[in-house]
Amino acid sequence: MIKIDALTLKNWISEVFLVCGFSEQNAILAANVLVEADLRGIDSHGVARLSGYVRLIQKNRINPNPIFKIEHRKKTMVHIDANSGIGLLSAPFAMKIAAEITAEYGSGWVGISNSNHFGIAAYHAMMALEHDYIGFSMTNASPLVTPANGKQRMLGTNPICVAVPTLNEIPFVLDMATAAAANGKLEIAERVNKPIPKGWAITKQGEETINASALKSGGMLLPLGGNTDGAFHKGYGLGSWVDIFSGVITGANFGPWVPPFVSFLDPLPNQPGKGIGHFVGCWDLDGFQDKQTTKEKMDLWINTFKNTIPLNSEIPVKIPGEIEHFLKLDRSKNGIPLVEAVVEDIKHLSDSLKINVPL
Amino acid sequence: MIKIDALTLKNWISEVFLVCGFSEQNAILAANVLVEADLRGIDSHGVARLSGYVRLIQKNRINPNPIFKIEHRKKTMVHIDANSGIGLLSAPFAMKIAAEITAEYGSGWVGISNSNHFGIAAYHAMMALEHDYIGFSMTNASPLVTPANGKQRMLGTNPICVAVPTLNEIPFVLDMATAAAANGKLEIAERVNKPIPKGWAITKQGEETINASALKSGGMLLPLGGNTDGAFHKGYGLGSWVDIFSGVITGANFGPWVPPFVSFLDPLPNQPGKGIGHFVGCWDLDGFQDKQTTKEKMDLWINTFKNTIPLNSEIPVKIPGEIEHFLKLDRSKNGIPLVEAVVEDIKHLSDSLKINVPL
Repeated sequence: MIKIDALTLKNWISEVFLVCGFSEQNAILAANVLVEADLRGIDSHGVARLSGYVRLIQKNRINPNPIFKIEHRKKTMVHIDANSGIGLLSAPFAMKIAAEITAEYGSGWVGISNSNHFGIAAYHAMMALEHDYIGFSMTNASPLVTPANGKQRMLGTNPICVAVPTLNEIPFVLDMATAAAANGKLEIAERVNKPIPKGWAITKQGEETINASALKSGGMLLPLGGNTDGAFHKGYGLGSWVDIFSGVITGANFGPWVPPFVSFLDPLPNQPGKGIGHFVGCWDLDGFQDKQTTKEKMDLWINTFKNTIPLNSEIPVKIPGEIEHFLKLDRSKNGIPLVEAVVEDIKHLSDSLKINVPL
Repeated sequence: MIKIDALTLKNWISEVFLVCGFSEQNAILAANVLVEADLRGIDSHGVARLSGYVRLIQKNRINPNPIFKIEHRKKTMVHIDANSGIGLLSAPFAMKIAAEITAEYGSGWVGISNSNHFGIAAYHAMMALEHDYIGFSMTNASPLVTPANGKQRMLGTNPICVAVPTLNEIPFVLDMATAAAANGKLEIAERVNKPIPKGWAITKQGEETINASALKSGGMLLPLGGNTDGAFHKGYGLGSWVDIFSGVITGANFGPWVPPFVSFLDPLPNQPGKGIGHFVGCWDLDGFQDKQTTKEKMDLWINTFKNTIPLNSEIPVKIPGEIEHFLKLDRSKNGIPLVEAVVEDIKHLSDSLKINVPL
């Protein structure tokens, strides 16, 4: 498999955004967020998404030069209208504000409307770590997931991310979609021509399926929990929470109205809000006890859980964020692997935007 | 099945707590929290828990007359040491403080250590609704759940609750354990001699099991997601988040050290914290846009999701909190059903505490 150096990839992505009309500063930031996904092994949310973003910019559905409108409504609650900008920019901007508020008040919250996809939730939540704050981020997304006991695409894969600082251990970073499996996992199964497990998806008619192409033929993803026995009402509840926090209370769209990521589908008419929404914020780690103590206890928590008796003695129990942390170390050193489809995408984009192919 | 009037049950529970040394005001509040669980149909967390609490009081593991120690560490972050009191009292006390802070700052957070089980999470989060705030509550609990890829009891069923106000619709109340299934569901299956679905529990040796007595023979519950295919690392991640917020950052115990609910098991030695911990707080619904608008949109969200195309035309899609809301209406009017084991418990407690049997 072809590998690309992270810096080379970052520079090339910046150039793509620049050509699309982003300012230099914005192009670099957006590239940083995407490459962070590739480094952490969330390949579906990195450079693989870039051509989709470019098409949305070309269709005027993403504003390359947004002016964010900030409204301080309460001391710890701020609203941002992202002016149809991309979430790769609006969410880090919001996290900076949340951190400033937290410095003064101990916690701070920003709701963003009129935005677009923000990449990996972890990038934003992890911005809190350098301040010794706990970071929190959520976003809604294009509808692909059915509510429990339904057969209609109503929710995105709506992720929740919580990042907690530590002393010497790697930070705790929970970054999870609230669907049973992300769309990307179905695509991988499809590529290698394998069935998917029961509990990931249903057909358009609502039948259980192990067909990895289920989504393409009008099917839908199931919420975390997979089926009635497995408590998919819980995954539905979590996805709903994310939708309400990202869309309903911020003034963005929600449920079936969240604009689709693919540029060939138009948003539904009669939208109740503006664009896609995000919810981000921080809590000061020093808020309940001395932060040094809290960090020491986080290290103890992590070491205790790592030492859980494993099911299989060759597979130790992992901490949320551990796999991504070590992938980043590896890929920073050895390069980011690119699947064939992404290589083609990079060549094609370079061609059409008349910039150098980085490979 | 025997039914009992909610007020009669409440008065009797108050009397039990009074006899155990609670003040009159505290006895009434604790009884309210328990009966709310029975009214909402969370039978495992209502009067069924009372004899367990009494045994913990008798063993001096719950202090019947706690003096809560409040420390305002940041403008929006408060710590409470609950002085070994019961969570049925400390959590509502903390939510009052969180609401006061929210009135001034737009959000407010209280971390509680040195506490005991707090009943249903929904009682506390829902206290925010009357102020037009979003309520949030979490607690850790006695270890019964294994981390993903482990075979050791490390986490409680660690619930997450989020309550969001509405205009005319019933409020959105997500109150979910982060295990695949609560212990109570296994007990029900055991009582009627039925197998449990795969993905709920494993044996002490780590084998999949459909035996409803799995926990009693040293087995453990699985996190939400049930198995590798079903993404149980997500349920493990959620349960870990709750444990860290409730235990690690508040100064309470966490993971395997969380004191057991049953009085015949002693807490582990070398505890890293004090008692059980809770994390509660609020966000002002007016924080991102006019709250009237937010409430109207919540109504639209609820109506939209209720009208999801159902899998089975006779089973409409439900909103988190809907089942509990209607059970409460029904049970407030028609009484609370009590299973035989609970009836026996009530008679036995009345006898041993020398108070009148309420049935």
